[in-house]
Amino acid sequence: MIVVKIGGSEGMNFEAICADVAERIAAGERFVIVHGGSHETNQLSEALGRPPRFVTSVSGQVSRYTDRPTLEIFAMAVAGKVNTLLVEALHRHGVNALGLSGLDGRLLEARRKDAIKIVEDGKKKILRDDYTGKIVRVNADLLRALLDRGFTPVMAPLAISTNNEAVNVDGDRASAMIAAALGADMLIIFSNVPGLLRDVADPRSLVEQIARDRLGEFARFASGRMKKKIMGVEEALRGGVKEIRLADGRVEHPLRNALEGRCTVIR
Amino acid sequence: MIVVKIGGSEGMNFEAICADVAERIAAGERFVIVHGGSHETNQLSEALGRPPRFVTSVSGQVSRYTDRPTLEIFAMAVAGKVNTLLVEALHRHGVNALGLSGLDGRLLEARRKDAIKIVEDGKKKILRDDYTGKIVRVNADLLRALLDRGFTPVMAPLAISTNNEAVNVDGDRASAMIAAALGADMLIIFSNVPGLLRDVADPRSLVEQIARDRLGEFARFASGRMKKKIMGVEEALRGGVKEIRLADGRVEHPLRNALEGRCTVIR
Repeated sequence: MIVVKIGGSEGMNFEAICADVAERIAAGERFVIVHGGSHETNQLSEALGRPPRFVTSVSGQVSRYTDRPTLEIFAMAVAGKVNTLLVEALHRHGVNALGLSGLDGRLLEARRKDAIKIVEDGKKKILRDDYTGKIVRVNADLLRALLDRGFTPVMAPLAISTNNEAVNVDGDRASAMIAAALGADMLIIFSNVPGLLRDVADPRSLVEQIARDRLGEFARFASGRMKKKIMGVEEALRGGVKEIRLADGRVEHPLRNALEGRCTVIR
Repeated sequence: MIVVKIGGSEGMNFEAICADVAERIAAGERFVIVHGGSHETNQLSEALGRPPRFVTSVSGQVSRYTDRPTLEIFAMAVAGKVNTLLVEALHRHGVNALGLSGLDGRLLEARRKDAIKIVEDGKKKILRDDYTGKIVRVNADLLRALLDRGFTPVMAPLAISTNNEAVNVDGDRASAMIAAALGADMLIIFSNVPGLLRDVADPRSLVEQIARDRLGEFARFASGRMKKKIMGVEEALRGGVKEIRLADGRVEHPLRNALEGRCTVIR
């Protein structure tokens, strides 16, 4: 079984990923798809006159500030639009896709981070009213039951908090937790870069292979969004996933390309 | 088993319906919930600068004109926001809710009405590019399997067309088709009126009981949205549902109120 994360940045070739996935499903492979939706969320936020706000935690992680209105915008963009259009595209390619968010059947349970320490203008602050969570449990049984019945789950990165609130979770880390919980053979994380680059400005500086015990040495090349992907890779490895690929989601045959090794392979 | 339709008009008491449903689920009853989202869709459409447009068919039915951008707005409002918030509210009341749209696992298959004959300014016109559908098949097996595993399905009124396009379907008629396909004991349709009124301006003119073979005589009291509800009632009866209740979703205990008969009961 392969868990595929489809990033939510601009420029991703959703249609091609769906076509490639459908080809492999027809050949007998099982997939769980996890997606993002940052670009759609930003666009909807702007259109609704609530421009997105990003905050930097004291540990240097950048994340979306998700107050309750933003959470609802996030749900509309990610669970409403991206999820529905992906499910539709997969059906068009003959895949019996089934869209879910982590709230559904408590698929993803998270601890809500209700007080986030951030740095703003050089000062430390505490943000409350943030609806972001860290996944603490994956209900893998439900996913397995759906796979056994021939469905391909397509998951939006929302979770239910331990206090029963809807929360936004990081899609890369969600895909890692799901891959680990399912004992997936492989996790492939598609984004709008070719993989981990030694020099972020040079697409030819791709790191092609990383032995799992040397991931720490390579993590320093990661910047921006790639930092969270590396955290996801670490979580997936810790959870027993044998192989993770960081691959380009913009090319003509994203899955084929990734499976043929034109990406960063960590194992 | 009871199928509950929660209308999408303004003023519905979602929280109270969820609380009442949770109480009955704790007592052992099974529910499938179908919801609307017209008010949320209208609000989102307005906010995005695409005010909703309603058309009147040659047979006098009023429906939302759903071009492709409107379909995506509908998916965001209905599958993204209303569905997620209902699932969240049910979890808060201890119900293991699982949100779906009719696209998921081909739960609802529809024939897309790609050419709708409408009347505008007294002239007949044909509208193309409309993404509205009429349900032709319900995948009841999947719903039963979820119920058997202890989940309460919560369904957004979208379907997959026979050509694999996402389409908007009428929530009342969807709930009727689902109740019929599941062989439900009862269908309860909550909206922002007390039931079928003899005089739409007088809430005390409630029709309390209708024998199923006399529905035709009462149908003439229906106007506006109530016409589609009566079509749903007819479909549910034809499909074998023994009892349908048209009830008020704005009161303090909507489900209790409906089960105690303060509504229109058709059987």
